[in-house]
Amino acid sequence: MNHRMILHTLGTLVLLGAALMLLPALCAVFYAEWWVALSFVITAAGAAALGLIARFFTRGCDRMIFAREGFVITACAWLLFSAIGAVPFVISGDIPSYVDAFFETVSGFTTTGASILKDVTVVSHGALFWRSFTHWTGGMGVLVLFMAILPDSEGRSIHILRAEMPGPVVDKIVPRVRDTAKILYLIYISLTLLEVAFLLFGGMSFFESLIFSFGTAGTGGFAPTADSLASATPYAQWVITVFMLLFGVNFNLYFLLLIRRFKNALASEELRVYLIVVVLSAAVVAFNVAPLFEQVGDAIRHASFQVASIMTTTGFSSIDFNLWPRLSKVILICLMFIGGCAGSTAGGLKVSRIVILVKSIRRELNRLLHPRAVASVRFEGKPLDDTVRSGVANYFALYLGLFAVISFVVCLEPFNLETNLTAVAACINNVGPGLSLVGPMSNYSAYSGITKIVLSCAMLLGRLEIYPIILTLLPGRTGGLRGLFSRRSGRKLKGENG
Amino acid sequence: MNHRMILHTLGTLVLLGAALMLLPALCAVFYAEWWVALSFVITAAGAAALGLIARFFTRGCDRMIFAREGFVITACAWLLFSAIGAVPFVISGDIPSYVDAFFETVSGFTTTGASILKDVTVVSHGALFWRSFTHWTGGMGVLVLFMAILPDSEGRSIHILRAEMPGPVVDKIVPRVRDTAKILYLIYISLTLLEVAFLLFGGMSFFESLIFSFGTAGTGGFAPTADSLASATPYAQWVITVFMLLFGVNFNLYFLLLIRRFKNALASEELRVYLIVVVLSAAVVAFNVAPLFEQVGDAIRHASFQVASIMTTTGFSSIDFNLWPRLSKVILICLMFIGGCAGSTAGGLKVSRIVILVKSIRRELNRLLHPRAVASVRFEGKPLDDTVRSGVANYFALYLGLFAVISFVVCLEPFNLETNLTAVAACINNVGPGLSLVGPMSNYSAYSGITKIVLSCAMLLGRLEIYPIILTLLPGRTGGLRGLFSRRSGRKLKGENG
Repeated sequence: MNHRMILHTLGTLVLLGAALMLLPALCAVFYAEWWVALSFVITAAGAAALGLIARFFTRGCDRMIFAREGFVITACAWLLFSAIGAVPFVISGDIPSYVDAFFETVSGFTTTGASILKDVTVVSHGALFWRSFTHWTGGMGVLVLFMAILPDSEGRSIHILRAEMPGPVVDKIVPRVRDTAKILYLIYISLTLLEVAFLLFGGMSFFESLIFSFGTAGTGGFAPTADSLASATPYAQWVITVFMLLFGVNFNLYFLLLIRRFKNALASEELRVYLIVVVLSAAVVAFNVAPLFEQVGDAIRHASFQVASIMTTTGFSSIDFNLWPRLSKVILICLMFIGGCAGSTAGGLKVSRIVILVKSIRRELNRLLHPRAVASVRFEGKPLDDTVRSGVANYFALYLGLFAVISFVVCLEPFNLETNLTAVAACINNVGPGLSLVGPMSNYSAYSGITKIVLSCAMLLGRLEIYPIILTLLPGRTGGLRGLFSRRSGRKLKGENG
Repeated sequence: MNHRMILHTLGTLVLLGAALMLLPALCAVFYAEWWVALSFVITAAGAAALGLIARFFTRGCDRMIFAREGFVITACAWLLFSAIGAVPFVISGDIPSYVDAFFETVSGFTTTGASILKDVTVVSHGALFWRSFTHWTGGMGVLVLFMAILPDSEGRSIHILRAEMPGPVVDKIVPRVRDTAKILYLIYISLTLLEVAFLLFGGMSFFESLIFSFGTAGTGGFAPTADSLASATPYAQWVITVFMLLFGVNFNLYFLLLIRRFKNALASEELRVYLIVVVLSAAVVAFNVAPLFEQVGDAIRHASFQVASIMTTTGFSSIDFNLWPRLSKVILICLMFIGGCAGSTAGGLKVSRIVILVKSIRRELNRLLHPRAVASVRFEGKPLDDTVRSGVANYFALYLGLFAVISFVVCLEPFNLETNLTAVAACINNVGPGLSLVGPMSNYSAYSGITKIVLSCAMLLGRLEIYPIILTLLPGRTGGLRGLFSRRSGRKLKGENG
């Protein structure tokens, strides 16, 4: 593995990360929060210095990125961004404990939206802007953003795209990786601005419109208000419902719409299943909670909002669904694990993986009856590669295995099983709120420091879809982190994708 | 599908099932429980009549059994046996409600050991004998027993062996299926008698020794006492600990020992992992519960007993582990899902599946780094077929998917999540006791009739490893039950294994 190149790339990324911190600084200046602005500037300056030093000592290195380097860069960059992004919260005094600030920042970048803040109304505007802005960049991908901005000189960055983008199969939508990244971000920015406009039109303040749009776009869930969207107007709630669903769709489909291939976009199998699940779940939940409301319209609105919010793993709430009947709560927990579409900003297992898994199992049943029959699995109109099929099944097993292991640790906390299990589910699926003590109107502040670190890991594992982190941590042939700072360049293994 | 043959075979099976009921009748006569004895005789007579009628109307049919028929016969036979086996409980008055009796009988045959009886001390000896005897026959397999007894005239019964025996790969240990079945049952009977002898030696009564041995051999868990083994002597608890572990081992290994291939038997990868998990878990649990006991020996004994009981999915208890610290409880829940070895009488996912899964995931990690590298997965010293690998991953996904769906239904019951989730886990893994309200000193009587039926399905799905039941219920090309009583013989599909 090429450790010098990895360090060099990380240096560049940190440098650009520092630049991003000037935005919350500006916001703080606008609200005359001088100390807050200064804390962002200090952190940015420190990060920039670190980045420059790393680049200086690794100048002139080979720039080719192979599969392994792609995974390691992605995992390290996310960890670095979270570690650095947490510093301003501590300096400004908004979140005095560094562990808490780290949890909040990981929760931001991974678009989870789980918070340790007991009262967001006392938090500065700069800090609120930063934590929701991390949602926005983390949603489409921090590294994808830099690929879009930087000149295409960093070698085969398709491996970074693959490592950071969610879904069973990731590929470029146009021949060049940089153009793909640009197109994705242009669609992303346009949809975000559209949402801001809609919210402003409904009478929401500019600051809140922006913050809520960041949270919706990244399917994050941090809100600038104490009760999320419970006291927002029905209009705003409907707008956000629709946009949450839009951001849960595979962005490749928007690209197909842009190049006027409407038929292809609408023929998507994943989109169809996604919409069916949303509509059916919303209908059942609305029916289930109808007795709690005076008007049927309210039941439909709140049911749609919560289903959209949980299925897209956003985590906004228009009501305390922790008080809802059991059936609705169980449906919401199932939706957490399904998640949005591949190639969207949503978390969870992704609809396409569920569809492929169901088809694999159907094929398995047929194989048991007709062992000699040759049957292929088709998805999105194409026959599915066996590697992808078994990759999805393995991913599913690994995902639930990790869920079990993390639950194991978190269950040592003295809270009830509902709290602990839904906390892990909400973190690994990047949803945010769980049930009981971590419900939509509560927060994660009661957990111990160690559990907060464990849950932060769960969020990163969920957002990066496990492999980048495991491959970075594993020692030896499949590993990486150990030798990161050795100057010896890695030996190239047989079969390496280069 | 050959429906006449299926009906004919089921007729024969019911006939022999009727014969088995004469054993509890004899036991009841011994204890002068005349009405109980009569209830078994009446049920046996009715079942025999049904069996004879089915055989009469389907005489002279083709006897060949293909894969699909094997699955359908197995699923239907288990359902029939449970439905008929429940009748004597109702007639004798030991369990007045038929739904309760059905739950108890399914729990018996599937070797789950979950009970709805609030007080077993008032139940007749005949009924106690029957419910533990169902453990014994269900453990090694009802149909395997008949294969061992009946002359080998029923066609290619390997498909029945495959459908009923647990594990990812099932094959004959000797060339003829009937001989395989005989050898398995001879080992099974010998080990059971050995346990009876050991328990008698420790001063336990003959009746209790027999009942506890049935429960241990089938890894079932029904006890003839109110507090399971809590008031048994430490000697008896240790004997049962050892025998539970012995019955959780793949029976093929005992056959290897019999034919003096010691090296092969001890080289088993699955055995090694099984023992490592048992020893490690017992050590951690003993350490964790040590403060609860005055003597270290007691902590080790109870920890070993509970770990062996849960890992082999037996479900006996030497203490109320529901009162144990959280860490121990979480370990026990994990052990439920791992289960015993393939080819044993234990339930759960099976150790070999976990090992294959972990190796598949390791291979997946390697594939991500070196897409063109060709790596094979080895298990038990042999390279593993890709079909088996993806079969295991699919089974895992299906298993956990079903666990989620069944939990979904059971969570509608107004009990806490710990009760509901561990109830489903204990049933689908054929363990028996869960935690909280379904803990080792409680029972399942609080659940509604519908939930009892759902949990009965979970037990059957777990014991038969899902596929036989799904393939029987599925309509059309992959299905069966619908056309079971039509006289038209099924069309043979291309690629059918014949």
